[in-house]
Amino acid sequence: MTEPKGEKIDHPNGACFNTTLPAPLPDEYKEVAWAIPSFDKATNQPKPIEPIWIARPNIGPNQVRFEMLYCGVCHSDTHCGNNDWGGCVYPFVGGHELLGKVTEIGEGVTKVKVGDLVGVGCMVDSCLKCQYCQNDEEQYCANGMTMTWNSPKTHGRVLGNPETYTHGGYSGSSVTHEHFIIKIPDSMDIQRAAPILCAGITLWDPIRYHGLVDGPKKVVGVAGLGGLGTMGVKFASTLGHKVVAISTSANKEFMAKEKGATGFVVTTDPYSLKANAGTMDIIFNTISANHDINTYLPLLKTGGTIVMLGGVAAPHTVYQMGLMFQRKTITGSLIGGVKATQEVIDFCSKHSIYPDIKLIRARELNDTWKALSEGKGDGVRFVIDVKASLEDESFLPK
Amino acid sequence: MTEPKGEKIDHPNGACFNTTLPAPLPDEYKEVAWAIPSFDKATNQPKPIEPIWIARPNIGPNQVRFEMLYCGVCHSDTHCGNNDWGGCVYPFVGGHELLGKVTEIGEGVTKVKVGDLVGVGCMVDSCLKCQYCQNDEEQYCANGMTMTWNSPKTHGRVLGNPETYTHGGYSGSSVTHEHFIIKIPDSMDIQRAAPILCAGITLWDPIRYHGLVDGPKKVVGVAGLGGLGTMGVKFASTLGHKVVAISTSANKEFMAKEKGATGFVVTTDPYSLKANAGTMDIIFNTISANHDINTYLPLLKTGGTIVMLGGVAAPHTVYQMGLMFQRKTITGSLIGGVKATQEVIDFCSKHSIYPDIKLIRARELNDTWKALSEGKGDGVRFVIDVKASLEDESFLPK
Repeated sequence: MTEPKGEKIDHPNGACFNTTLPAPLPDEYKEVAWAIPSFDKATNQPKPIEPIWIARPNIGPNQVRFEMLYCGVCHSDTHCGNNDWGGCVYPFVGGHELLGKVTEIGEGVTKVKVGDLVGVGCMVDSCLKCQYCQNDEEQYCANGMTMTWNSPKTHGRVLGNPETYTHGGYSGSSVTHEHFIIKIPDSMDIQRAAPILCAGITLWDPIRYHGLVDGPKKVVGVAGLGGLGTMGVKFASTLGHKVVAISTSANKEFMAKEKGATGFVVTTDPYSLKANAGTMDIIFNTISANHDINTYLPLLKTGGTIVMLGGVAAPHTVYQMGLMFQRKTITGSLIGGVKATQEVIDFCSKHSIYPDIKLIRARELNDTWKALSEGKGDGVRFVIDVKASLEDESFLPK
Repeated sequence: MTEPKGEKIDHPNGACFNTTLPAPLPDEYKEVAWAIPSFDKATNQPKPIEPIWIARPNIGPNQVRFEMLYCGVCHSDTHCGNNDWGGCVYPFVGGHELLGKVTEIGEGVTKVKVGDLVGVGCMVDSCLKCQYCQNDEEQYCANGMTMTWNSPKTHGRVLGNPETYTHGGYSGSSVTHEHFIIKIPDSMDIQRAAPILCAGITLWDPIRYHGLVDGPKKVVGVAGLGGLGTMGVKFASTLGHKVVAISTSANKEFMAKEKGATGFVVTTDPYSLKANAGTMDIIFNTISANHDINTYLPLLKTGGTIVMLGGVAAPHTVYQMGLMFQRKTITGSLIGGVKATQEVIDFCSKHSIYPDIKLIRARELNDTWKALSEGKGDGVRFVIDVKASLEDESFLPK
């Protein structure tokens, strides 16, 4: 299916779609979810998040069903749900940092057993045949990965009604093919482990790809000190690199240094920018709001690289001569494959690295999204306590 | 000296300067050059190139004097001379592809002897102490390389009046410190060798840096089929890569394939762009005129790199999400160091690789610049026959 069935709504960022969820099919079951139900044409805004019923598939071969314990709230949830990128299909159920406990496994499952702790990140399917999938980089699948939310069901490993798009982890349970299941060690602090599945891997994969796990020690800048950036600070400092945190807010310095940064640049202060010009080998730029990349490029040494990681919608203005005269590089990176995601979970477990989180209940999602959109996350990753939310009868579907 | 003595002229691209060249000092001699004498405020244009007298320094320790035989004409000469980048100091003598024969050497010179063929590329000095100079990448000197034209004399190896800026190779002779002298094998076709010193090294250095000399065979795109691009086609095909030439003009296909390309993309043809989408590992983008990089990025495979090599003044519009979703990279590269320049000369000598050139006399420089500015170089590098030009009494200084 190329376009969802429903009402197509023109939007400057790209069309979005209001659809009606069909009743569960015979091979599906009914589950609680917290969703943006539709895009409100009258206000030209998405409606607030509310509890709804969705359908999840019954178990099938190689499928793993798990009850949801925790689900992280990512800035990308808000970008997609608010149609910042276009293409949002409503009802939209966010959440791609799913952490749960296995309740049922299908025939042939070998990776986990009932009772195991498991995680699911941003992907739930890909072709598993192309060169990228074969190279454990399913996120770059040549035939298009199936994302945990807002994706058509393409490659056959996401069961249930093929007419509906994928629903994320703001929900009571989920069912995922074992290839995309991440094993969570029992010893982990699971409410804090959830955000590693997106915020963690998003930093880990480029850290790995750019040679910072085994290679020589570098000066590593981390721009933006939200959920992603603070994970970058923790990883790079644990790996022995000199970490310089970069922020618009001088008042984030203490927090950044507590998490492992030894240097700090305030981008609103010309003296701070000048003092740190040409000092960094690599910058992990986690800023998700629109911003001017030309503020950051001068911080790189000759030959340095800036890795763009945030879901920035507006284009950047890039001066070619600047890239040439100092052989500077702008590149991007997107989450990471299943193998690398397992690797970062195991690394975090071994070194007790966790994001700083704030537990919320589903009824707080609208306020949380607002805080994230306004850049007020302040280094904390919000995580839904799903069990507690399911007990909150005032915010459950009728 | 931070700013040249003379009249500062405001210009939208950055100020330029009209100066009066002083008479030769006692340790200088008078030499013919072809220069833009000044910026004409009445027409808001640089004046046409004309013959003038300039001063060159007498020989000193470690210095090499050579009579000019040939000098290539680079698109960068026109960009600088027309003040496209701001900062042009008039009189401006272009030319940074100098090829000559040694006529005198200073005390201590060991690299060459009188009668040897020599070349000088885009640089005539750098600090030789910083990490980049020590790593044979003088072009990225932390203290700033001294360019062959339009540069203040900073590091002490460019002799002569310290008040004047460097003058390029559109001239009867020059004097350069032996560190920046490239040895030209006697067996080379010297009029065709001159452009290797800029157009050649500009492609060779990133080819080398990105692992295409010894590494696995790749699909290499070359965008822009002027003096730089055609060298890229020749190098990459000689090294065994599959080369796809990329041009706005369908009629350059025959020429590109003659030079070694096996594929061809016409960027004005949506079908050609679509058919070649996602096929290239790396693109060397030699386009020097303003252009939309988003035409070229889709040609890259996931994980591919575009290397920006032309002197494009206008900024590019870059979409972050595109870089992220396919881990694409935009980088730059600037000429190459002395060691790499010697390497490319020796590689070209061994494999008989030469740019296709058109010999001109100095009196044709104004027409040649016009053709380059209008993108009408058509794969040919223009080279001044300096000896013949010096015999053309109608275009010599009074």
